[in-house]
Amino acid sequence: MDINGLEENIDVLQRSECTQPSTNTLDALQAFNALPGKRKIWVDNSAAASVADAGVEALKLGMGYVCSNKIAATRSLKDWYVLLESRQRFKNETNVGAALPILHGLRSMIETGDRIRRIEAVLSGSVNYIFSSLDSGFKFSDAVREAVSNGFTEPDARIDLSGTDVARKLLILARTCGDKLTLDDVTVNGFLPDEAFEGDKKRFMAQLDALGERVDTLAANAMETGKRLRFIASWSPENGCTCALQALDPDHAFFTLEGTDNAVSILSDRYADNPLVIQGAGAGGSLTASGVLSDVYAVARWMLTQNAQES
Amino acid sequence: MDINGLEENIDVLQRSECTQPSTNTLDALQAFNALPGKRKIWVDNSAAASVADAGVEALKLGMGYVCSNKIAATRSLKDWYVLLESRQRFKNETNVGAALPILHGLRSMIETGDRIRRIEAVLSGSVNYIFSSLDSGFKFSDAVREAVSNGFTEPDARIDLSGTDVARKLLILARTCGDKLTLDDVTVNGFLPDEAFEGDKKRFMAQLDALGERVDTLAANAMETGKRLRFIASWSPENGCTCALQALDPDHAFFTLEGTDNAVSILSDRYADNPLVIQGAGAGGSLTASGVLSDVYAVARWMLTQNAQES
Repeated sequence: MDINGLEENIDVLQRSECTQPSTNTLDALQAFNALPGKRKIWVDNSAAASVADAGVEALKLGMGYVCSNKIAATRSLKDWYVLLESRQRFKNETNVGAALPILHGLRSMIETGDRIRRIEAVLSGSVNYIFSSLDSGFKFSDAVREAVSNGFTEPDARIDLSGTDVARKLLILARTCGDKLTLDDVTVNGFLPDEAFEGDKKRFMAQLDALGERVDTLAANAMETGKRLRFIASWSPENGCTCALQALDPDHAFFTLEGTDNAVSILSDRYADNPLVIQGAGAGGSLTASGVLSDVYAVARWMLTQNAQES
Repeated sequence: MDINGLEENIDVLQRSECTQPSTNTLDALQAFNALPGKRKIWVDNSAAASVADAGVEALKLGMGYVCSNKIAATRSLKDWYVLLESRQRFKNETNVGAALPILHGLRSMIETGDRIRRIEAVLSGSVNYIFSSLDSGFKFSDAVREAVSNGFTEPDARIDLSGTDVARKLLILARTCGDKLTLDDVTVNGFLPDEAFEGDKKRFMAQLDALGERVDTLAANAMETGKRLRFIASWSPENGCTCALQALDPDHAFFTLEGTDNAVSILSDRYADNPLVIQGAGAGGSLTASGVLSDVYAVARWMLTQNAQES
């Protein structure tokens, strides 16, 4: 691995430990900040709001903030502006599609003057696994059970099936394109009846056959006309953010999207006729870790430029 | 456009003109090098060997070298090692797929420890336009005439049809993955008979119907079994580089690839089950220009780190 001499140049890559163990995240951040070394990066692979709080605070303290955690970038616009203002020290490439070069690609397009006109995306591997199983004749309830037993969903599969995670990822894409939206502005047209979310996980799994009937009907209707169901996240400057089940024609870029893959399709002034499409595995520990590492390198490289300007 | 204060910080973005007009490229480089300013980038959007010569020389002089020109990166391994040794000052992202994040994606994967196992790609927009036209029943000769009249090919379409340009792009992918090959190592299984390349362009176009008969037969055979012809560039560590016509099954990622789009499919240790796929327009002036601009930014940002280390 070539990290271009970073190791010799910045303190951030030292393996430091907080000298004072703490149960409070902000205390831990302060202890980290007090350690020797001029440049530091707060790396947040949690799914916790308190660690994201500390990340935003880290930026205010002049530190870097790299996160696979999606919370910081999907809360208030006030927090988002803190991230934006520190964009050279803040990297969240793994928030959408793990290590797929989606946010990098978008940022390069925007940085060089392209204008994004429309994004369509499949952003949940577990949800796509379920709907692509329906293509080969599975019932929805069986597909969910299979996804759960393969470990493709959260322990409570409704966290995936509610679409909240997809909504967060779509919001990050929209904000990256410059749209000033919050999570409340994302329309999520769920595919499960409201009663699915009443009661606990056990009750949900017990009633799954009945709860999935509507989806099975939609899937059967789609197949009759040669189409396939996919849960699509869409954004455009005019119509904002929507997550909804769609029956896709065979010529749609996502028609053949299989298994737990993610995909994003970007139409812009420059990609005006056919979209730029990126697809592949969008989850998994080693992919996310590699994306986080790339982000840490990018922030560390930028920090070297700051040393230059200050000296 | 946010270029992060680069304009104030580096001389490279000054609009400089060589003070002494010169007809010799190396003289022009020396004149550029003699201009005021500590850091300079040689930007090469030509298709000329002499400008690539100057680019390699620019790197030896400590300058940056950004090129859409594919020549420097596809000549001798000796030249390639000069590029590799200066990799922070050398960027050629637009060599493969214009502004598509293909080389960036590959480099991120390799930099974070992934191992590339196989690459398959459609790397010629003009050739793909011709073969995707056959899907809808066009004859090869008519498809070529259409591509020529739409300006999708070089003035002499045989430059595209010979596969040399695809071979260069594939070699760059292979070298980026660490394989030590030269252009001679790339096997190109052409789809036109040798006699197509005898004589001039006019003679070629006059005999096109006869010359295309073999392809028309292959296309008809493919269609009978539900397949489609595509000109595929492939690389693996075991088998090296091959460019050849293939009849693709409907479940192949490139089966639906239309028009002048490019696509690349990467299997690796991390993308082991399903490949990472990137597709979209892989040619065109504004896309290439935006990719070159991204490269200039990247080299300029790195140059700031060098100012840091030297001060």
